Amino acid sequence: MIKANDPKLKSWVDVPKNSDFPIQNLPFGIFKTQYLEAGAGVAIGEYILDLTYLHENGFLFGLDLPSGIFNQQYLNDFIGLGKKKTRAVRERLSELLDINNGELQNDKANSELALIPMDEAEMLMPVKVQNYTDFYSSIEHATNVGTMFRDPENALFPNWKHLPVGYHGRASSIIPTGVDIYRPKGQTKAPDADQPSFGPTKRLDFELETAFITCKENELGEPIPIGKAEDHIFGIVLFNDWSARDIQVWEYVPLGPFLAKNFASSISPWIVTLDALEPFRVAGPKQEPKVFPYLETKGNKNFDVNLEVSLQPEGGEENVICKSNFKYMYWNINQQLAHHTVNGCNIQVGDMYGSGTISGPTPDSYGSMLELAWKGTKPIKLSDGSERKFIEDGDTVIMRGYGEKDGVRIGFGEVKTKVLPTK
Amino acid sequence: MIKANDPKLKSWVDVPKNSDFPIQNLPFGIFKTQYLEAGAGVAIGEYILDLTYLHENGFLFGLDLPSGIFNQQYLNDFIGLGKKKTRAVRERLSELLDINNGELQNDKANSELALIPMDEAEMLMPVKVQNYTDFYSSIEHATNVGTMFRDPENALFPNWKHLPVGYHGRASSIIPTGVDIYRPKGQTKAPDADQPSFGPTKRLDFELETAFITCKENELGEPIPIGKAEDHIFGIVLFNDWSARDIQVWEYVPLGPFLAKNFASSISPWIVTLDALEPFRVAGPKQEPKVFPYLETKGNKNFDVNLEVSLQPEGGEENVICKSNFKYMYWNINQQLAHHTVNGCNIQVGDMYGSGTISGPTPDSYGSMLELAWKGTKPIKLSDGSERKFIEDGDTVIMRGYGEKDGVRIGFGEVKTKVLPTK
Repeated sequence: MIKANDPKLKSWVDVPKNSDFPIQNLPFGIFKTQYLEAGAGVAIGEYILDLTYLHENGFLFGLDLPSGIFNQQYLNDFIGLGKKKTRAVRERLSELLDINNGELQNDKANSELALIPMDEAEMLMPVKVQNYTDFYSSIEHATNVGTMFRDPENALFPNWKHLPVGYHGRASSIIPTGVDIYRPKGQTKAPDADQPSFGPTKRLDFELETAFITCKENELGEPIPIGKAEDHIFGIVLFNDWSARDIQVWEYVPLGPFLAKNFASSISPWIVTLDALEPFRVAGPKQEPKVFPYLETKGNKNFDVNLEVSLQPEGGEENVICKSNFKYMYWNINQQLAHHTVNGCNIQVGDMYGSGTISGPTPDSYGSMLELAWKGTKPIKLSDGSERKFIEDGDTVIMRGYGEKDGVRIGFGEVKTKVLPTK
Repeated sequence: MIKANDPKLKSWVDVPKNSDFPIQNLPFGIFKTQYLEAGAGVAIGEYILDLTYLHENGFLFGLDLPSGIFNQQYLNDFIGLGKKKTRAVRERLSELLDINNGELQNDKANSELALIPMDEAEMLMPVKVQNYTDFYSSIEHATNVGTMFRDPENALFPNWKHLPVGYHGRASSIIPTGVDIYRPKGQTKAPDADQPSFGPTKRLDFELETAFITCKENELGEPIPIGKAEDHIFGIVLFNDWSARDIQVWEYVPLGPFLAKNFASSISPWIVTLDALEPFRVAGPKQEPKVFPYLETKGNKNFDVNLEVSLQPEGGEENVICKSNFKYMYWNINQQLAHHTVNGCNIQVGDMYGSGTISGPTPDSYGSMLELAWKGTKPIKLSDGSERKFIEDGDTVIMRGYGEKDGVRIGFGEVKTKVLPTK
């Protein structure tokens, strides 16, 4: 077991019950405050541990870190140091935060300056996203969509069980939690209309996803063998792949989704490391037919992480409208990365790879409004008495996720985004 | 007329007849030499004018350029200064290279150091590509593909004449001329096969395209009005959108091309500015039905630029296999950019936007092997007696382009790529 994951560890920093950020998590992010433009930090309870401060004041001595590695706008350079190094940093931070260690705990002057209350900071994008790919790896989601739009008898396309279907998305419009989005405009065509029309989307939707972030390149022309895939993956965030369903239906033939997706994708700001997720490894669904050798994995490659979506109408309360789990993924992250590079495509440090909508087997676990309200035919009732077929102006969508085992809860924090009317 | 475009201008630097790089062109690129790791230059005849050297030695005095702006690995910071500034630099370089100006011409010590013979330099990627989108804007190409794979009577999808169809591509695998590529491996499924198979593509293809490069951002949520689109476009390169047709057919439903495209795209290294292309403006094809107001353009938005593709077998001679023209584009670059941002999608400095395969009306003007050899049914004969349905190992594909008017030839140089066997 990774030492920093030990359920018996306890921090001298106060960690409220049900916090996403106990000492066993230590996710990395980029924050700003009144005094700091941007820098790297680690979440602990309701505080951010300022890594720039720790580094500059000698608390990370011996780890041989480049000068200024944390005092940056993005984590790309840090995670690009490789997992051996970043793992050593997490282990050292675990040590420093351990209740049995006095180094920082007993150094009041430094510990007060190194710990920043979360409510005094704003979270920024953790990485400069170099490339963004979205997969389509939940069999329940692909089946639901195929059933609705094509043929319930042949919901999955013939390729679906042979390869993790994926497509390229837009890196520039990925934004962190807390940034409002505007309802996008575009062309749509009603099934019974002669001509397309132009205006704000009437079918704005979220998609509940996770995304993994890469920390190691491969050379163009050199596939990443599936057994090495996790060497290239630093960690995972929650990912809301905003979608305009009516724009998508009109534009997507024959080259895939474009303006229906690229107006915004929202992420949770803390990258939870694969290391922190170790305790939550589980087997994935059985893959039948057998996959090609380049896609064969051994051991537990899925993660038992609870996911949920809440919808909060303007001025109203939160309504949990979906409870799903990351473990439902048919194709795991190793398979996704091995497939992506089998043709020699090159991965860069700071790439983001979306899972695709993660739907579960039951109707309350579907990861999009499209599925939850079944193409508008089964509107969702909210606690204020209103109904939703899709997302309305003023609505806030909140996604959360966590794994729980041996009394330890490893959480992702949240991605929370409000929808404003078309600008 | 832009002063630097005057056909009467002549340079004191020798410019061979039929050179792509007369004084009226002055395209920007990034080069390296034995002594310089990377820096910005401008092509003139068979020389590269070293902009770092000129800047450091006072020849660009008065233009108020940031220190070190040319001494960089990419042009992003330079083009990000905006078109007013980059235009002023081109005008100043035109002045310095003018045969009637003695400043540099008569300063032998400096002119010898500032002019680097092209054969002593290697061209690198001109920009760090932030985002890459590929359009599908040639009606001849879309019609050919639709005829081959779907229905000759309904070759175009219903959306095609209403919007410039586009999709996101992979930025990481865009490479400059001269970089060899490896034949990609992947899954394919023959129409009569029960199961897919895995191996090197048997249908490797090029696609003759251009790509424009952006130099000005818009805010997320703020569409770029079509009348302002060219303020955001710095210039254009040739673009070979390598494609594996057999991989594409199997993978592309329902989310579009992925591994069939992302193993490599090759570009010409000199960015020809929109300013230098001014003399070649022509009207585009008539658009019927009428487009939505956000896509309406006035004036000449297409460019009369001859494009050609040569195929050179291993150890053999070049065979010109396609002659097309950029003017055939149904959707122009203004329309592409206005459409891309109408939903609020944000453009970044250094983005690349591919035209899509540019096919003309006649069979010898088709911009891909798929169309030239009509899905393998009409193999192309080469001068060495061999035939090609698709691209074979050892083949080199070369694309060239130029406009010609009033005795002035504005060229793009070439993008030349050799295909190596699967690694």
